[in-house]
Amino acid sequence: MALTESMSLPTGDPGRIHEEGHIVRDAVESARQSVADLVGVTPREVVFTSSGTEAINAAVWGATTGRSGAAAPGPILCADVEHSAVRDASARARHVEVLPVDATGRIDVAALETRLGASDAPRPALVQCQWANHEVGTLQPVESIVDLCRQAGVAVHVDAAAACGHVPMDLGQLGADLVSISAHKLGGVGGAGALIVRRGTRRTPFIVGGDQERGRRAGFEAIPALIAFGAAAKALAAEDQRRLRSEADLAHRHIAALSAAAEQVDEVELVGARDPESRLPHLVCLGVRGVEAEAVLIGLDRAGVAAHSGSACSSESIEPSLVLEAMGVDPNHSLRVSVGWSTSDADVDAFARVFGDVVAQLRSLRA
Amino acid sequence: MALTESMSLPTGDPGRIHEEGHIVRDAVESARQSVADLVGVTPREVVFTSSGTEAINAAVWGATTGRSGAAAPGPILCADVEHSAVRDASARARHVEVLPVDATGRIDVAALETRLGASDAPRPALVQCQWANHEVGTLQPVESIVDLCRQAGVAVHVDAAAACGHVPMDLGQLGADLVSISAHKLGGVGGAGALIVRRGTRRTPFIVGGDQERGRRAGFEAIPALIAFGAAAKALAAEDQRRLRSEADLAHRHIAALSAAAEQVDEVELVGARDPESRLPHLVCLGVRGVEAEAVLIGLDRAGVAAHSGSACSSESIEPSLVLEAMGVDPNHSLRVSVGWSTSDADVDAFARVFGDVVAQLRSLRA
Repeated sequence: MALTESMSLPTGDPGRIHEEGHIVRDAVESARQSVADLVGVTPREVVFTSSGTEAINAAVWGATTGRSGAAAPGPILCADVEHSAVRDASARARHVEVLPVDATGRIDVAALETRLGASDAPRPALVQCQWANHEVGTLQPVESIVDLCRQAGVAVHVDAAAACGHVPMDLGQLGADLVSISAHKLGGVGGAGALIVRRGTRRTPFIVGGDQERGRRAGFEAIPALIAFGAAAKALAAEDQRRLRSEADLAHRHIAALSAAAEQVDEVELVGARDPESRLPHLVCLGVRGVEAEAVLIGLDRAGVAAHSGSACSSESIEPSLVLEAMGVDPNHSLRVSVGWSTSDADVDAFARVFGDVVAQLRSLRA
Repeated sequence: MALTESMSLPTGDPGRIHEEGHIVRDAVESARQSVADLVGVTPREVVFTSSGTEAINAAVWGATTGRSGAAAPGPILCADVEHSAVRDASARARHVEVLPVDATGRIDVAALETRLGASDAPRPALVQCQWANHEVGTLQPVESIVDLCRQAGVAVHVDAAAACGHVPMDLGQLGADLVSISAHKLGGVGGAGALIVRRGTRRTPFIVGGDQERGRRAGFEAIPALIAFGAAAKALAAEDQRRLRSEADLAHRHIAALSAAAEQVDEVELVGARDPESRLPHLVCLGVRGVEAEAVLIGLDRAGVAAHSGSACSSESIEPSLVLEAMGVDPNHSLRVSVGWSTSDADVDAFARVFGDVVAQLRSLRA
């Protein structure tokens, strides 16, 4: 029968089954390669998630829960300047010991070293260390902290969501057990993130019930968002870290100009680390005495300058930022300003022109 | 100063802050309304997730974990025909008691009633009941099961991922505490799902660390996937349930034709419920004695007919389906065939023409 003859019955090529499925899988694996390349790991170390927040939850769950469901003992060491996802996931999993920070929000390395060396305290189950603070931009001493943890044989999770795509990152060299990143923070769309799991790290899955992501994260893949994540990562990596460095230089220059203009206004000060080598290039947090951040925001918005108050993830709440509180900064009177790829010198000039007037007018209304 | 005058300083309109953010929020809330309309609940009862699998994990976590982290006692009642996400999430959370099923995969309502009425057994923490089986299409006695659970005051979770969009669904009337649905199963893209939380149901969040979804699911929203989810739900609901019913009739007719053609082949039988009122309209599971499902799939694929073997979520594993095992069906020799909006009579004819030949040729190769 002609129909049967034309069917070319099986010769054992499994690549033919679900051909459409294979095309999609190739696209997802290509995205995984781009993300891996951006952060300096192998694709096998990239577990895709739906957000940085899910990656963080998965990291804490994975590091503190045995496959049997039995939890390893020991507290989580976590600074109050960590993102709420890190703080909340840690607090849910077990007892938290707070790591001290300085007035710029930098984790106290010496205090961690003392804690890890203490023979009379329980061995920590996990140490949290953000790469950069999401509200004030301070870079953490992440290499020193990872080294200390590895020497002590204690698992360490790095929340790199605020930093990834803004500073060069070689996670293969860093050697942290677990690192969380977010797609939308580096140019992707909402709905994608990744947990980087260092080769050899044992980890219990957080979302269970399917073999996706090599059995490390169940659920039908967010294919469009993952492809966008890969494209964003590839764009960032395309001209290697030199371009990132040059963009960072531009951002640093913009932020420096913004900060200088802001600090010319009475009783306005930069919050967080000042040294360009110690901070994220693209954002700055300004403390403004005497007026509410919300009012300054409205004034800037009306002048065509979009800024930010408090944490992005607290936008539905009116509670002050715990991160700023931990640093001793009055959270109602601070303002986050960031620059991006589309920011021009003219935008910076606009901010410089209007900021002082907005603050002055608000202060005069209160007087 | 002209610049200051043109700035129109704040009059307290908070709608102006983050204007772009408000546009996005409106789009997400509109999607939420469309999903709520499709399944007959209020938008407040819809918690968006990244997949049906995440919704299921969140349902189990939420129903069995107290806010203090202390777990309520009691087992989860769960049939082996549930999706692997339901089985795995249940098994992780606590002891599971298996609900019996019949040879079509239908949960034994009388056995559940006896168990819920037993005074000498621990009170269950949760009962699992899928709306329809994802592999064989059998509809569950979901109304009877929800009624029994509500009478007994025991929480019930309905995995409606396989059914939603394929059969009419009024979750407001059903009254289950928790219902999981998946966007990509009803025409959306990967990266979106929803947990329907009945008004008044107390539930501990699964992913923590942000106030998104009214504090019920943390993480930056998967905006494009959620908007696609809403569009798919709206398209399904647009001509009300009549169109769904007419599409179901067409799918039933296609499946009936497929099944009839397949059953004309020696030692091929339909697995699952036969009565159109007792099964999903759009898929059928065929048991084929003497040849491997994988080989049949390859033969059908080469003839331009895409079918399916085992569970969609087991595509990376070569293990046989536990669902079919629970029904007493040989999982290596069964094949899932589904029809969709784009399926034509010609496609069904093509299947009918080639299926018998593919099976016969494979059997002759084994002889």
